[in-house]
Amino acid sequence: MKRVPLRSLLIAVGLALPFSLQAGNTPAAVPATKTPSPKYVFLFIGDGMSMTQVNSAEIYAKAIGSKEVGIKKLGFSQFPVAGMTTTYEAGSFITDSASAGTAMASGNKTLSGIINMDPGKTRKFATIAEQAKAAGYKIGIVSSVSLDHATPASFYAKVPSRGDMYDIAVQLTQSGFDYFGGGGFAQPKGKNKDKADVIDLARQSGYTYVNSREAFQALKPISGKVLAVNATLQDASAMPYEMDRKPDDLSLADYTRKGIELLDNKKGFFMMVEGGKIDWAGHANDAMANISDVIALDNAVAEAVAFQSRHPNETLILVTGDHETGGMSIGFAGTKYATFYDKVSKQTMSFQAFTDGFMKQYKAEHKGTGSFADVIPVIEKTFGLDFAKMSSDEKTQIERAFVRSMGGEIEKNPLENDYLLYGGYDPLTVKLTQILNQHAGIGWTTYSHTGVPVVTFAKGAGQELFGGYYDNTDIYRKLVRLMKLRVNANSTVAAN
Amino acid sequence: MKRVPLRSLLIAVGLALPFSLQAGNTPAAVPATKTPSPKYVFLFIGDGMSMTQVNSAEIYAKAIGSKEVGIKKLGFSQFPVAGMTTTYEAGSFITDSASAGTAMASGNKTLSGIINMDPGKTRKFATIAEQAKAAGYKIGIVSSVSLDHATPASFYAKVPSRGDMYDIAVQLTQSGFDYFGGGGFAQPKGKNKDKADVIDLARQSGYTYVNSREAFQALKPISGKVLAVNATLQDASAMPYEMDRKPDDLSLADYTRKGIELLDNKKGFFMMVEGGKIDWAGHANDAMANISDVIALDNAVAEAVAFQSRHPNETLILVTGDHETGGMSIGFAGTKYATFYDKVSKQTMSFQAFTDGFMKQYKAEHKGTGSFADVIPVIEKTFGLDFAKMSSDEKTQIERAFVRSMGGEIEKNPLENDYLLYGGYDPLTVKLTQILNQHAGIGWTTYSHTGVPVVTFAKGAGQELFGGYYDNTDIYRKLVRLMKLRVNANSTVAAN
Repeated sequence: MKRVPLRSLLIAVGLALPFSLQAGNTPAAVPATKTPSPKYVFLFIGDGMSMTQVNSAEIYAKAIGSKEVGIKKLGFSQFPVAGMTTTYEAGSFITDSASAGTAMASGNKTLSGIINMDPGKTRKFATIAEQAKAAGYKIGIVSSVSLDHATPASFYAKVPSRGDMYDIAVQLTQSGFDYFGGGGFAQPKGKNKDKADVIDLARQSGYTYVNSREAFQALKPISGKVLAVNATLQDASAMPYEMDRKPDDLSLADYTRKGIELLDNKKGFFMMVEGGKIDWAGHANDAMANISDVIALDNAVAEAVAFQSRHPNETLILVTGDHETGGMSIGFAGTKYATFYDKVSKQTMSFQAFTDGFMKQYKAEHKGTGSFADVIPVIEKTFGLDFAKMSSDEKTQIERAFVRSMGGEIEKNPLENDYLLYGGYDPLTVKLTQILNQHAGIGWTTYSHTGVPVVTFAKGAGQELFGGYYDNTDIYRKLVRLMKLRVNANSTVAAN
Repeated sequence: MKRVPLRSLLIAVGLALPFSLQAGNTPAAVPATKTPSPKYVFLFIGDGMSMTQVNSAEIYAKAIGSKEVGIKKLGFSQFPVAGMTTTYEAGSFITDSASAGTAMASGNKTLSGIINMDPGKTRKFATIAEQAKAAGYKIGIVSSVSLDHATPASFYAKVPSRGDMYDIAVQLTQSGFDYFGGGGFAQPKGKNKDKADVIDLARQSGYTYVNSREAFQALKPISGKVLAVNATLQDASAMPYEMDRKPDDLSLADYTRKGIELLDNKKGFFMMVEGGKIDWAGHANDAMANISDVIALDNAVAEAVAFQSRHPNETLILVTGDHETGGMSIGFAGTKYATFYDKVSKQTMSFQAFTDGFMKQYKAEHKGTGSFADVIPVIEKTFGLDFAKMSSDEKTQIERAFVRSMGGEIEKNPLENDYLLYGGYDPLTVKLTQILNQHAGIGWTTYSHTGVPVVTFAKGAGQELFGGYYDNTDIYRKLVRLMKLRVNANSTVAAN
């Protein structure tokens, strides 16, 4: 395929060269490879997914079907290559999704909150997706959260703040990328709802916009550039948690399969697919929502694996995380050496569905007058908790959280502890998932991300580059090298 | 070198074939390899060491020398190959060191507490060290905890209970292995102190016994079989925590270097070196003791790396963990996205040294009459905590723990919570390390082990077998295959 000089392209659009490609920043960590350049590249990102999240899904998958101890491996955890990846950002050992996305998409460390700009917010970075686009690949971006969220944005936008979601969305419409699918937009008309609707801007840029299951399924390669927003959006314009998804709702796997159908072409494609709500469930310390979204991501990966079976020598599939969320562990002090993962399977909806559903309605109906006895049957049914078998301390914790949810203050439970106890979530809901998780033997240490390294699984053309222990910026470097997008000493893209 | 038929050997000593080598249990996961059989094999086991422990040591090593964000990699974390290893045992997702040691040493899953026997406690398993010994390798076993502890015992003993420490020690004296070094014996004369001293038994079996630094340093290959017990033993006949080690005390690296000197011979050697107190520090939620013992293990690995540089094509070095301990995370709710690893460097001694030193003396001198104000200066000096800057809740937690340490009971702090709060440790000590760790941004979820997979790093001849994601029993299988100890369909050891 025809390649264009990258330096010229970058200068033309006013971009700095990626850090790793500037003089003196030779990507020495990338070993020489004779692997042919993969034509089809999938990058799956489990937001907030590290080894514990993957292994928890494997334990869960085994535990719900059998009393036998063992794991049922996911599809992607059976990939032939697995490496460990550090995720720290420029100013902290704990990254956010903006700096982690920037690292993987552009090879540069920056500060949390910043997308594809340096910590001083002056230089802009080219992304792997832009470089691939310039080299002739078609580009797809899929996410279960809103398409203007930090992780998907890291592949097409450059903004000083991830909160500039309208700016991000506008850059989406200007990206020229071929396929966007999944969640919607957090600020489609800007923060003050006074800007041009990004859907209109996308249409003006030539995108076919769909947001129904039927229109989505009717999409064909002749549809041209596509922006597909899910019909059902749950929280913050994101697709529903997998455990809340109705049979008629499209899944992350549906968006991935459609992407393959639309992007498949002789010059190849690069598709990034994010399982974004693994992270959100981690923040809320909700193991069941976390695990089921890891499994949803694995189902999406299965679509790529099916495609790869038809193009075995030309396809690379990577599955990684951008950071760990929650300090999740397969072990809790109260259960010592035992785990009971089948217990979380009793939870019937995500923390979000419970907060937005029952809790919202109950609070509206019982302003300051709620009775804890009222809610116990609902709690028992929704979370599979049995009050008769709980310790008095657990019951006290739950009742205090209920009072706090209803707006009351608690004696001996000062407000200085509110964040440690509830992390800003609905107090009753978060306490219920925490205690259910503890019964299962699952512990959490934080409502934020952690610095625990993530795992990168690889299968296909070039997989051998992704073993070992390396940094998230190396994912960019390895991909650029492998896809022959590497800028050499003459700063031009090496010809194929 | 001459190889003997394994089946004959095993039958002769009354052993069952390892599970993985029985008919129908082909170790299919082990890919074919053309790598020459390594002559020198090192297996380093960080007890309780998973990715978080390794990365924490790397963050700490960087943080104490620089304000810059980044990691200072350990020697072994720079090894070219890294894989992930599941650790579950036959009856639980969370293993202990006996079943994990059995898995790595014999390729068999068993129950926690059992060493080299099946869950029914009837069949015995041959170990990789015994198989290597039979094939002509010299064998060394080093541990920073007592030599009769579960991990070292897994390479030479077969007992229904790891608590049978005298039986284990007797089996050590009968093993014929060439070098034992590190900690001492927990029950040298049996539980009731009425049995023959194992040191005498070892001498009768031809071992040269040393337990002084001078005698240790004088050991030469002509010393024959060696049993070297550290002059200074801290808790449970273990070597001191690295942070409590006096300049004159021998280190894990010293025991490793001496082992290399004594074992080096034309037919090769197999040496297992355990950093056993990483685990003990994890149980006690003491990050500084944990990190410094990971660094001590890395220093021991450096001795193997130095040896390997002289025998690059004949040496394999593996560094793994037997399980994770503590649910350690690089992130705590109270510090959100920040970490402050330099804070733990202010801790001047291990939890154990504080409990055995100051606390023991203070409790003896102030039976029920202690004053919290008395101990605050000691706490501040020992753990680098500043009471003036702590939250009222933290101060309350510490004062309650102090009262509990002094034998009092706490209103609003019922005994049902004692284990959750203190895990059976001295209440004040464990609360101090927990709060110091929280200030550093380090969280813990349990006082026990967890099911979080561990990392296996590999360097040298056959390293390529140790990438990917596999089970701890596969470590045995891969080693047996690589060292040509594998039993083929005819159940004999394949000739070299």
